Amino acid sequence: MAHVTIFGTGNMANAIGGVFAEGGSSVTYISAEESGTAPIVGDIVVLAVPYPAVAGILSAYGEQLAGKTVVDITNPLNFETFDSLVVPAGSSAAAEIQAALPQSSVVKAFNTTFAATLVAKTVGGAPTTVQVAGDSAEAKSALIAAIAAGGVQAIDAGALSRAHELEALGFLQLTLAVREAISWTGGFAVVR
Amino acid sequence: MAHVTIFGTGNMANAIGGVFAEGGSSVTYISAEESGTAPIVGDIVVLAVPYPAVAGILSAYGEQLAGKTVVDITNPLNFETFDSLVVPAGSSAAAEIQAALPQSSVVKAFNTTFAATLVAKTVGGAPTTVQVAGDSAEAKSALIAAIAAGGVQAIDAGALSRAHELEALGFLQLTLAVREAISWTGGFAVVR
Repeated sequence: MAHVTIFGTGNMANAIGGVFAEGGSSVTYISAEESGTAPIVGDIVVLAVPYPAVAGILSAYGEQLAGKTVVDITNPLNFETFDSLVVPAGSSAAAEIQAALPQSSVVKAFNTTFAATLVAKTVGGAPTTVQVAGDSAEAKSALIAAIAAGGVQAIDAGALSRAHELEALGFLQLTLAVREAISWTGGFAVVR
Repeated sequence: MAHVTIFGTGNMANAIGGVFAEGGSSVTYISAEESGTAPIVGDIVVLAVPYPAVAGILSAYGEQLAGKTVVDITNPLNFETFDSLVVPAGSSAAAEIQAALPQSSVVKAFNTTFAATLVAKTVGGAPTTVQVAGDSAEAKSALIAAIAAGGVQAIDAGALSRAHELEALGFLQLTLAVREAISWTGGFAVVR
């Protein structure tokens, strides 16, 4: 399928890499220690790092990311207050990243699915569904195909401007989990 | 249980009224034609009307709404473009209504559950769950109890500021349904 490079080695990075690998894609990881020196070999590049770590990757790899699909999975919360996002009102982390990478196709995905639900492929009996937003139809369909090949559902959630709503959903879901109104194996399931 | 007055007689008004009635609450409706003349008898007042119709209700009933719980179910979309909300970035319809009704306890609820899922009480095999946000713990717990008595799950989704995220979720859900990525009997299920 695809060649995927994943920045990050945490729970989300591993869960996402597992889905792609199961779908037959080649997957390479770049850890925080390797970031800045290891080359990007994939055509799909997943930023599976906390939002504050994204800026360093963009400044180190901006030229290498040109022409590639860059997948932003972040939920840019203010983790001190858990009451707001650190991106401008009405905007999104994905929009900020796209502005910094005008020659890349930025896609928002995986920010509304907890790691455990990507591994289990189900959430509350419903199939886990990755919501994908972006302005490049080609980038979205290639990503959706690579996710689906790994046994996880994926749907087109619209233009990159919908990343604002996806990040609001991710924000709300995180606050519910932290307040134990839902569990980390639950969350918002997409029922079709 | 509670005394509920519902503005509106559409699908959502009927579905919401059905839940409350089944839980033993008394339910009265005020139609668009009666609005401005019919008195509000309930302590919980549900604005089950399109967002553009809210302003007229507030101006006609502002004084009568003092001291009451006002439930905002709206999704304030720009229905011409389906690409934005008509409330200021970072704000919400619920926050605008609270600002107009400083003596009422405004609660956001029912904007993330399609009517069919309130009637069926399930969505994709999971129990339908109403997300309730507001700044009055008392108003929220009374509302949650009245909904739960009607056989539908309800959870506290946080302060009224979370209405921004709930409206983003409702917005995204509507765009997915309009684009037929999900059905009107589906949507975002809350898996606990």
